[in-house]
Amino acid sequence: MFDLLNTINNPSQLRALERKQLPQLASELRAYVLDSVSQTGGHLSSNLGTVELTVALHYVFNTPDDRIVWDVGHQTYPHKILTGRREAMATLRQQGGISGFPKRSESPYDAFGTAHSSTSISAALGMAVASRNQNIQRQHIAVIGDGAMTAGMAFEAMNNAGVTPNVNLLVVLNDNDMSISPPVGALNRYLARLMSGKFYAAAKRGVETLLSVAPPLLEVARRFEEHAKGMVVPATLFEEFGFNYIGPIDGHDLDSLIPTLENLKQLGGVQFLHVVTKKGQGYKLAEADPVAYHGPGKFNPAEGLKKAASTKQTYTQVFGQWLCDQAAADDKLVGITPAMREGSGLVEFEKQFPQRYFDVGIAEQHAVTFAAGLACEGMKPVVAIYSTFLQRAYDQLIHDVALQNLDVTFALDRAGLVGADGATHAGNYDIAFLRCIPNMVVATPSDENECRLLLSTCYQHAGPSAVRYPRGSGLGQAISAQLETVALGKGIVRRQGKTIAFAVFGTLLPAVLAAAETLNATVVDMRFAKPIDESLLQTLAMSHAAIVTVEDGCIMGGAGSACAEALQKIGAPSIPLLHLGIPDQFIDHGEQGALYRELGLDAAGITRQVTTTFANLFEPPTQSAAAAAESAHTGDTSRRVA
Amino acid sequence: MFDLLNTINNPSQLRALERKQLPQLASELRAYVLDSVSQTGGHLSSNLGTVELTVALHYVFNTPDDRIVWDVGHQTYPHKILTGRREAMATLRQQGGISGFPKRSESPYDAFGTAHSSTSISAALGMAVASRNQNIQRQHIAVIGDGAMTAGMAFEAMNNAGVTPNVNLLVVLNDNDMSISPPVGALNRYLARLMSGKFYAAAKRGVETLLSVAPPLLEVARRFEEHAKGMVVPATLFEEFGFNYIGPIDGHDLDSLIPTLENLKQLGGVQFLHVVTKKGQGYKLAEADPVAYHGPGKFNPAEGLKKAASTKQTYTQVFGQWLCDQAAADDKLVGITPAMREGSGLVEFEKQFPQRYFDVGIAEQHAVTFAAGLACEGMKPVVAIYSTFLQRAYDQLIHDVALQNLDVTFALDRAGLVGADGATHAGNYDIAFLRCIPNMVVATPSDENECRLLLSTCYQHAGPSAVRYPRGSGLGQAISAQLETVALGKGIVRRQGKTIAFAVFGTLLPAVLAAAETLNATVVDMRFAKPIDESLLQTLAMSHAAIVTVEDGCIMGGAGSACAEALQKIGAPSIPLLHLGIPDQFIDHGEQGALYRELGLDAAGITRQVTTTFANLFEPPTQSAAAAAESAHTGDTSRRVA
Repeated sequence: MFDLLNTINNPSQLRALERKQLPQLASELRAYVLDSVSQTGGHLSSNLGTVELTVALHYVFNTPDDRIVWDVGHQTYPHKILTGRREAMATLRQQGGISGFPKRSESPYDAFGTAHSSTSISAALGMAVASRNQNIQRQHIAVIGDGAMTAGMAFEAMNNAGVTPNVNLLVVLNDNDMSISPPVGALNRYLARLMSGKFYAAAKRGVETLLSVAPPLLEVARRFEEHAKGMVVPATLFEEFGFNYIGPIDGHDLDSLIPTLENLKQLGGVQFLHVVTKKGQGYKLAEADPVAYHGPGKFNPAEGLKKAASTKQTYTQVFGQWLCDQAAADDKLVGITPAMREGSGLVEFEKQFPQRYFDVGIAEQHAVTFAAGLACEGMKPVVAIYSTFLQRAYDQLIHDVALQNLDVTFALDRAGLVGADGATHAGNYDIAFLRCIPNMVVATPSDENECRLLLSTCYQHAGPSAVRYPRGSGLGQAISAQLETVALGKGIVRRQGKTIAFAVFGTLLPAVLAAAETLNATVVDMRFAKPIDESLLQTLAMSHAAIVTVEDGCIMGGAGSACAEALQKIGAPSIPLLHLGIPDQFIDHGEQGALYRELGLDAAGITRQVTTTFANLFEPPTQSAAAAAESAHTGDTSRRVA
Repeated sequence: MFDLLNTINNPSQLRALERKQLPQLASELRAYVLDSVSQTGGHLSSNLGTVELTVALHYVFNTPDDRIVWDVGHQTYPHKILTGRREAMATLRQQGGISGFPKRSESPYDAFGTAHSSTSISAALGMAVASRNQNIQRQHIAVIGDGAMTAGMAFEAMNNAGVTPNVNLLVVLNDNDMSISPPVGALNRYLARLMSGKFYAAAKRGVETLLSVAPPLLEVARRFEEHAKGMVVPATLFEEFGFNYIGPIDGHDLDSLIPTLENLKQLGGVQFLHVVTKKGQGYKLAEADPVAYHGPGKFNPAEGLKKAASTKQTYTQVFGQWLCDQAAADDKLVGITPAMREGSGLVEFEKQFPQRYFDVGIAEQHAVTFAAGLACEGMKPVVAIYSTFLQRAYDQLIHDVALQNLDVTFALDRAGLVGADGATHAGNYDIAFLRCIPNMVVATPSDENECRLLLSTCYQHAGPSAVRYPRGSGLGQAISAQLETVALGKGIVRRQGKTIAFAVFGTLLPAVLAAAETLNATVVDMRFAKPIDESLLQTLAMSHAAIVTVEDGCIMGGAGSACAEALQKIGAPSIPLLHLGIPDQFIDHGEQGALYRELGLDAAGITRQVTTTFANLFEPPTQSAAAAAESAHTGDTSRRVA
């Protein structure tokens, strides 16, 4: 089945093939992607769409010496398979296995690590300037989707690239928005080849090229088309930025792709190739529903996806339900997402409240200041955004929201470790980078019902606030149907014990409660990293021998540090502290639970860390205590250490 | 001299004037701006350029009910003068006086606080949607410069606005780049009025309108012009985004501005007005050198600016000199600025190393990932950026630089309080938001020679690093001409004392040394907030009764917290800590020294805070100690408290 593909262990072997063998290779590669993803889970639609483009790029260009930067990078499975990682696809996104994104440490063919959107043109331009300044002749290629093209960062890079002299930069726009794909045929193929040849000079394209711009411009393009029919259009948007624009060409047609890329290879300079592909290409179920097959789990390709039967709601679902309920209760609520309707749980909200739903595109900066503008006029915006993507709008949060003390609620999904997506998507820094900003409220719910309570509470708070919650399911708890609130900045005691007091922020609480059973410790759910419950901390300090803070975020500058600062500030008696959380390192992909366990953040690990750090507070080690510690280490936490 | 202007205390009075009185008003307003800024210092060129536009906007629109959002906001002095703050201009940018930027808390006419670039369209669109959803009829106007238009955020907002139905949004592009200003005359005025009228429909403009796009496109436009001469051009860049484009019109000609704005007022919807103005208009010296008159101090308008005779170098100058010296020693060095050549001290570097100098425009996100791309290919980029503007590129620093452990050096100017520019420009959060990111090195030089040492050290470090230094002059110290380095992550003892140990980060060191004389305390210059010098802290903890951390950054999550975490981590004995720094609030404009004094961060304040917090460590208060504390409070620190 993979007879030809199995002979390709690197792109040199690919380049040794005859042109006529490539369709067979592409066909096997597509089948391999489907087969492989159906067994491991991962991104599917986007990878089925880039099969021919990947074959063509590696066939024409001299990789890895020529650099390919894949924007976002979730479309790089074909690239990984052709660059020596065919067998490794079985380990995709698993701990110790290969990453779901390009990664410099994984392969010399991965010229730049990506995962967040719209970085590719900036990075490739940097590489191109480095080559120019060092007199190295090579090509630098950014492959960017039409969605990623809408982010401001891509615009900034285009704006800069267009006026940078003497660099070799090829931007390949992988346009896979089906609603805009123009018909692609023989004439178009001819035009693209013609224009990418050296005849180009002043050749002009028909109006249809103008219409093939990024999808948010679709409506405009349609409106414009009415006026422009029959007129001569001298330039596309991209040419106004200084690029030589070629396209659109059919991104599944190797007979279009290869001659065009070969021509572009000769040209050098700043080139823009517009390629039209179809997400899910070649797998009917994915073609029909590319969103569902964007990032499926394991499935049987012959049967397609089954609806997973889960009784536990995800935090994303809890948020989505809360948003609908809160919106029904308050017509000032508006919901904003930067292009993450499904991921952030806004599908139902959009259906019920279309006038109050705003997908602003991949545009986190705009999303936040747009929310600030809404808040100025009495609306109550809720910005639903992944923790890691809020990093893109940090200045807007500080300068436009917090400084003006505007009433914007941030719903931060994917806080803490995210599992298979790995370090690039981790939401580990939000507590640290948010709590240092004046006026901010930062809430850390410990389960799904707390999540709803704290969303309601932060929403009612007349100022900027953030509620952070993790990827994945809660505990399967009953969730209130009401919109109750809790006291802002106040924690609650969840277990009364002695000697050790745990101050917990977020969903590591069950692990802490289990450890506390072993240790007979006190446990408080702090609920808020800011404002921090100073009086509760003082009470703990006065009645315990040590305080252990626990959070699923970075230790440096995190909620544990907030406790230390608070104790210092209120002049509480000096008490030994231990901060448990994510250490100062980037954590690669893997199963969430396994990763936390490795970091010593499961019940056994917490018990172990506490008993090790505060050995003096517990009985001197005896054989039975040592055995208990050992069994704690292996997950048996039924015996008490102290 | 200001006979007419003195009668205008709000825009209603302006709107009651006859049209023919407006040139006189504009003339007085311009004179008032010049007179006023020459006495207080502040922004000049930009404000001289917006006089007529401001008069016209308030004359035509029903402010404050109609909303004007001024991008960046340093062009709003005419607006402030016409909206009841004429007299208050004498207090501009002074403590307790009016801000140099629009500020919601200052006036209902300041619809949105601005200072960082390119937020206006997002904010105005948010307001426009709020009005639409609440059925309020009003206009929402974003006034944005051609420089600000190049930032990705403005693009994101345009991209979103163009497809948002039923909103009233007018974007006024204040194009003051002289190199691109097209000739503006009678025909153009006619065309603009025609096109803004209801005849518009399918009317097309000549090729010259296409050429009047934002300045980075100038070269493109010129090149394009050669091809396009004589052709019919159907749309500008802005129309492709869905805006109705009008212009360019002369922004100093009230007879162009007012009828055009009146027409636009009737039209509603999403409109784009291109206005051409001249920075420094009406003051010959500023017209001739708008950069020098961008933000002058006090001066005599008849004589113009005098070169200030200062023997002390600013930190910006120290950086600029270091960059040239380091570049001469290492041809891998490249310098990058997001449109802050003068402010960041890169003028001389550009002259000496034009091929290694990159001004990427107002594009912080791109600047950082561009640097990452350069670093991938063996170059050694130095990104010169204000601390507050690095907030714009936080995700790029995390995801593209730190995660890949790339060798990029960040030179963070304007760290800590910045003085007259106020809260929007404060660099208070950098230690907190940088130190939580793995792989980062964060250096905090305490004087200008240390600044050079730490720049060299961080540059030599093969990984991401940041050196933060404040606005203003150093101590007047001799600065090494060499490129020596120091040990990474190691502090130095600056004074050996007892009982109290100060751990100092940055340029509050002289104040601490003075306080330490009073207290006979130990002082260490920690030099690095990350990695933190754990062994030095342990030594301090074992030999003192308390440790006081001092930094010119936020306390929450700052370097003081890093010390607390380190002491906890290494299991040092519990020791009382006191963290001095910037409290959890936004600090308004004022003179830097005065602001630090108010925060208790001068020598007397530091002494006072230490003796108050650790009263038990000092002799019981006697009359003389109380007197000493009092004299410390008033700046006399010659007597010892303990």
